[in-house]
Amino acid sequence: MREAYHDQLDSIFDDLAGICRRVETAVGLATQALMSGDAAIAERVISEDVEIDLARERVEGSAFSLLSLQQPVATDLRTIVAALRMVSELERMGDLSVHVAKVARLRVPEIAVPEDIRPTVQRMATVAEDMVKRVREVIIGRDVEAAIALGRDDEEMDGLRRRSFAELLSDDWTHGVEAAVDVALLGRYYERIADHAVSIANRVVFVVTGHNPTALAEQ
Amino acid sequence: MREAYHDQLDSIFDDLAGICRRVETAVGLATQALMSGDAAIAERVISEDVEIDLARERVEGSAFSLLSLQQPVATDLRTIVAALRMVSELERMGDLSVHVAKVARLRVPEIAVPEDIRPTVQRMATVAEDMVKRVREVIIGRDVEAAIALGRDDEEMDGLRRRSFAELLSDDWTHGVEAAVDVALLGRYYERIADHAVSIANRVVFVVTGHNPTALAEQ
Repeated sequence: MREAYHDQLDSIFDDLAGICRRVETAVGLATQALMSGDAAIAERVISEDVEIDLARERVEGSAFSLLSLQQPVATDLRTIVAALRMVSELERMGDLSVHVAKVARLRVPEIAVPEDIRPTVQRMATVAEDMVKRVREVIIGRDVEAAIALGRDDEEMDGLRRRSFAELLSDDWTHGVEAAVDVALLGRYYERIADHAVSIANRVVFVVTGHNPTALAEQ
Repeated sequence: MREAYHDQLDSIFDDLAGICRRVETAVGLATQALMSGDAAIAERVISEDVEIDLARERVEGSAFSLLSLQQPVATDLRTIVAALRMVSELERMGDLSVHVAKVARLRVPEIAVPEDIRPTVQRMATVAEDMVKRVREVIIGRDVEAAIALGRDDEEMDGLRRRSFAELLSDDWTHGVEAAVDVALLGRYYERIADHAVSIANRVVFVVTGHNPTALAEQ
């Protein structure tokens, strides 16, 4: 009985990793749509988001049935509640990819991001996508060290966000208000994707160790 | 025993309502700081956010202890899991108020929002604050009708967001890129506060009826 139970718990984590892979694809495709002005790719991100939502519902259903039928305590309870939160965050990351895709779609056949700020925005996108990829590995391996490292790498995103503001508020900015607003909001979306990746990594640390990463850092 | 248990569950909802009141204050003060360029008020919102975070931790602790010690099933289980989610959303709403306050602080002694777009931004702020106030009443009264009405009122926020974009992208916009970026991000923060209010209202509907509001609308 307990063995079947732990199989179910593992299977929830497998599902979380699967959703995380979908999110990784969504972030990558949304960025591709954004940088190429490709409406078909943008549409794909928008329409495929429903798969992430359905996968979230399945994980919630499994987590609820474990809570109801198995009455877990201590570590197991903590793990299931953490899974419920992680799946909410993954769904939000999917939504944020949809936001990026919608900015791309709105400007087709133009490209929303002016050429001279593209390296900064592309780097934000790459960092976000990489963090999603790594948080999937954290989920699969319950890897505390990798989770803590992920938190540190969030600093690069903060730096990129500051750089993008410096670029679009400089006197050299000749692309007008619309492009500036697009870039500011895109930066916000990528930053939030990265924030959620860190938050999920922190939850994995909590599940494995029973402590939050900040508490571990202080030890 | 069961009575004490339901007292604890009610007390969690009282705590949620209390946090919601703090969030309402934060949204109101952040807007006041924004519209007056008052650094002291902005600082107050930023420093008082820690109270919301601490209150969230207390609710999480209570919810966990109920889950561990009482092993709830069915409706009670659904209620506690919903409470855990609601408290996460309330915390985010506090964070978003801090973001508004930080935009205000960054422009002191200037006012971040140019005069001609202030009515639109003020209306967004008022709608957001009103939705926070009403979701508190929904939490206190477990009021399904008020919760469903809240979801409908979110449409005004969408309309205001569109209007703000039209204003800052029009040829009449003479306030430059910085003010446009501020207004776009502020709009995003107020919109997210409203989104979370709707989401919390939907969770109350789910707790009371066992159905999501969309399912009820289809009946």
